[in-house]
Amino acid sequence: MMNSMKPTATLLISCPDQKGIVARLSNFIFQHGGNILDSDHHTDFSVDRFLGRIEWEMEGFALSKSELPPALAEVADSMGRPEGRPWQLHFSDELPRISIWCSRQDHCLLDLLWRHRAGELRAEIPIILSNHEELEPIAGQFGIPFQHVPVTPGSKADAETQTLALLKEHRVDLVVLAKYMQVLSDDFLRSFPAVMNIHHSFLPAFAGAQPYHQAHARGVKVIGATAHYVTPELDAGPIIEQEITRVSHRDTVDDLVRKGRDLERMVLARAVRLHLQHRVLTYGNRTVVFE
Amino acid sequence: MMNSMKPTATLLISCPDQKGIVARLSNFIFQHGGNILDSDHHTDFSVDRFLGRIEWEMEGFALSKSELPPALAEVADSMGRPEGRPWQLHFSDELPRISIWCSRQDHCLLDLLWRHRAGELRAEIPIILSNHEELEPIAGQFGIPFQHVPVTPGSKADAETQTLALLKEHRVDLVVLAKYMQVLSDDFLRSFPAVMNIHHSFLPAFAGAQPYHQAHARGVKVIGATAHYVTPELDAGPIIEQEITRVSHRDTVDDLVRKGRDLERMVLARAVRLHLQHRVLTYGNRTVVFE
Amino acid sequence: MMNSMKPTATLLISCPDQKGIVARLSNFIFQHGGNILDSDHHTDFSVDRFLGRIEWEMEGFALSKSELPPALAEVADSMGRPEGRPWQLHFSDELPRISIWCSRQDHCLLDLLWRHRAGELRAEIPIILSNHEELEPIAGQFGIPFQHVPVTPGSKADAETQTLALLKEHRVDLVVLAKYMQVLSDDFLRSFPAVMNIHHSFLPAFAGAQPYHQAHARGVKVIGATAHYVTPELDAGPIIEQEITRVSHRDTVDDLVRKGRDLERMVLARAVRLHLQHRVLTYGNRTVVFE
Amino acid sequence: MMNSMKPTATLLISCPDQKGIVARLSNFIFQHGGNILDSDHHTDFSVDRFLGRIEWEMEGFALSKSELPPALAEVADSMGRPEGRPWQLHFSDELPRISIWCSRQDHCLLDLLWRHRAGELRAEIPIILSNHEELEPIAGQFGIPFQHVPVTPGSKADAETQTLALLKEHRVDLVVLAKYMQVLSDDFLRSFPAVMNIHHSFLPAFAGAQPYHQAHARGVKVIGATAHYVTPELDAGPIIEQEITRVSHRDTVDDLVRKGRDLERMVLARAVRLHLQHRVLTYGNRTVVFE
Repeated sequence: MMNSMKPTATLLISCPDQKGIVARLSNFIFQHGGNILDSDHHTDFSVDRFLGRIEWEMEGFALSKSELPPALAEVADSMGRPEGRPWQLHFSDELPRISIWCSRQDHCLLDLLWRHRAGELRAEIPIILSNHEELEPIAGQFGIPFQHVPVTPGSKADAETQTLALLKEHRVDLVVLAKYMQVLSDDFLRSFPAVMNIHHSFLPAFAGAQPYHQAHARGVKVIGATAHYVTPELDAGPIIEQEITRVSHRDTVDDLVRKGRDLERMVLARAVRLHLQHRVLTYGNRTVVFE
Repeated sequence: MMNSMKPTATLLISCPDQKGIVARLSNFIFQHGGNILDSDHHTDFSVDRFLGRIEWEMEGFALSKSELPPALAEVADSMGRPEGRPWQLHFSDELPRISIWCSRQDHCLLDLLWRHRAGELRAEIPIILSNHEELEPIAGQFGIPFQHVPVTPGSKADAETQTLALLKEHRVDLVVLAKYMQVLSDDFLRSFPAVMNIHHSFLPAFAGAQPYHQAHARGVKVIGATAHYVTPELDAGPIIEQEITRVSHRDTVDDLVRKGRDLERMVLARAVRLHLQHRVLTYGNRTVVFE
Repeated sequence: MMNSMKPTATLLISCPDQKGIVARLSNFIFQHGGNILDSDHHTDFSVDRFLGRIEWEMEGFALSKSELPPALAEVADSMGRPEGRPWQLHFSDELPRISIWCSRQDHCLLDLLWRHRAGELRAEIPIILSNHEELEPIAGQFGIPFQHVPVTPGSKADAETQTLALLKEHRVDLVVLAKYMQVLSDDFLRSFPAVMNIHHSFLPAFAGAQPYHQAHARGVKVIGATAHYVTPELDAGPIIEQEITRVSHRDTVDDLVRKGRDLERMVLARAVRLHLQHRVLTYGNRTVVFE
Repeated sequence: MMNSMKPTATLLISCPDQKGIVARLSNFIFQHGGNILDSDHHTDFSVDRFLGRIEWEMEGFALSKSELPPALAEVADSMGRPEGRPWQLHFSDELPRISIWCSRQDHCLLDLLWRHRAGELRAEIPIILSNHEELEPIAGQFGIPFQHVPVTPGSKADAETQTLALLKEHRVDLVVLAKYMQVLSDDFLRSFPAVMNIHHSFLPAFAGAQPYHQAHARGVKVIGATAHYVTPELDAGPIIEQEITRVSHRDTVDDLVRKGRDLERMVLARAVRLHLQHRVLTYGNRTVVFE
């Protein structure tokens, strides 16, 4: 994919299908001297919904970052339903801010931090959060602040209050659950709905606890992993990315766990990268992923 | 895989784990002058079960096809539980006899018949059976007898009686459900338990009706197909083979159906081939596949 | 992918990169009342080339099929280099006409004909052509005329003259080499350059003769197949699609041939389908595939 | 795969094909009270070669680790050619000792060290060696000694002398080139032939320098990575493992590099693990991998 190092603007739009959306938006950009780098859209005719993504260079663009939103609103707002603005705008020189949450397993955390350092994930990571202390040294090796927030059945509500405050303080845009083994409350998700999770099965198979044990018991010949946005219903949110690998009768549950770790970190990393590039739109319980 | 054109014998064994099984069996074959071509085994320690497969050349072997079973029984019977013989024996010059059952969709039938003609499936196909007449011309093009057995809610029991008689008459070893869209009764399966099916999802996800519609509604990023032995519980029998392919938001249900057809015929063909080479053993609700 | 059954027009464009291409084209369509179904484009910055594809519904479009080209020319011609028109236009109700060429192996031919009958390949197939007679019955079963054109070292030029006449007579748009084991002359390709081939390796590995033997000798752990457009240099034309499958030490050359057949027919079918949907553009020795 | 934590012995054998090999070896183990956990073999009939692997528990085995080799020699030596012993023996409680060599790229090193810590790679890593200093901190984080051995055109022979001494001092069994970007001399390989490399293409395509640039220029739709043993001919040694991933016209060379990193670390890790479990045998320029 094109990853221009020059500053770009990315418009995401999700609105009722209607004629001329692409023409009006690309015209708007062209008339202000913008050079479109990437443009993709999709119409789900079964629900009459248009979803689109346009990315263009800000260099030479006639509108500044502060002038753009109101000008765009004139073109785009009319496309939505009365109740809401149908679009979001992102600038590539304003990095999304993510918080990675982990528990005791290190593979997803280490992988995300390595990719971040390697330049694969363009984001700020102001804080890593965990209900355990084991992974603090890894955070330290990558120079990212680590916050230990213990969670016990009795302290869960308090812990969530504390983490919400941390998310606000650090202006976090997205929480990435990188094998964080706690279920978030409905209250928490209402206050902070931008949460991505990695589940260690090809959902909807083996939702819930111990998917590798379930997979082994069922005798499947493939196992998978699923990255999805978190919704109040467990493991039922919009799927962003899935991948599988083959297994055989020779693989014990421990082998599934081992093979699954590679799936989990690959799938989660791909989903985080797609999200950070503003390539994922959700509608209903589905995603559109503009790769 | 080794597919000697010389006659071979294949021993399958499934018994409680114990020391010396491989030694005793390979010794038995060696002492009678047999040349082992392929030998594989697996122990599931969680249930203390040994499963093995040995294939050797009959050319130069000291025992004839009629002398072999009683001689083998002396060695192998002691390994099983009191109640039953733990082993089966197959000769490569006695082709398994399969009956393919289809309905209106032609892709799996056509694929199996083409593979049979191409020499990929070493079997006799004495009869194709369908509850509809549409695919009779395809059977005719490959020179295989076709029997139309209509099934209505009222006639199902009679139809099953008729088909059981046909299976007996044609000495069928295995029924392959190649998109045969009827559920077999428990009675039928008790009388004829050797039935393989292709289900158009990665089981256990999307069991039951319309799996592609279910998959589309859930917004998955991969779809799959599963070949399994049929048991009374719908889509819950031992899994032989699975495969998946990627899909995206651009794929409609019709696209899933189209992509799924390729998965279905590949997966079913692989499972049939493995079965015909006596490479699949079942225990509990699991399979061991000696590829 | 969206496959509207309503008539559509598809514009393919390939020209030097410049600002406003998308805006001008989508505007042109919008102003004439067209509803864009699909729009995709790509810029290869290393050679400053823009490649795009736009598909829109003709229902309700203000211009008829005969009025459209001159009107479009006014907008689009200026984008090309002086020497040539940068665009092509296709109407979905004018089916492309393909000729399938085969030799003695039946798997790719049978697969393409089955897919054609199943509605996966929207094309006319006016004629199948072969240098051998073996596959005539398969053509007959699908009701497609079959022409036997023998090729010997001495008769090759005459045979090519004869086939060029046949292609002209049947107004063929694309020749699909479905395991046609002859090399086409440079003269032939100059007269008829629209030829697609399936090669049984993951090119550029194992170009030329007997790729499965080469693969086995090298001891690779994956084998592949490649669909590409034919150019005078053997097996070096623009690649449209590739796929691989795993092999092991257990696989003999015959096993590679068997596994390869499945790759070949899948890859060729995908490439033909993409071509027929006008989703493949070439530039230099590369393709852009708008999936 | 079975990964018993109890001590086991693993016998690898590679000899001319002959009757009774499996019987004699399994008998030998059985008669001394050994419980076979895993047994696999393969005959390459094209060169009349038998290759086998047997793993059994040492607990309860009648022979001690020192008594076993001479006893085994009596059975197994006769199977080889006059010139040499056809077998090797490994004990699971004697960990293989590997040295990882790297240059400036960290992904393969970090991945191997993480897997080692996670228990996926049962080996001692007495020393990491690099011609650059950049990765010393990673070695430090995992507590593994790091040795910087600079290599310049003029100093290469001296550097190899120094590294050979280090390998001897640390009793290294296998050198793993984890993106070590230097070619080893023939002299070095004669002195220390046990070297594994990761090459960033699906060999034999794109051997030599800059395979991702080559792949991009050729316009392939898949890229790959290959783990192989090193021989004097560049990138031509026996292949252990290969994997591929899909790419499209949207992927720049930088994208291929990024996607390739994931392939490289996965493929190298799998190959190292298979080697450490004594599952890889070579003969001629091929491998047998007993997964």
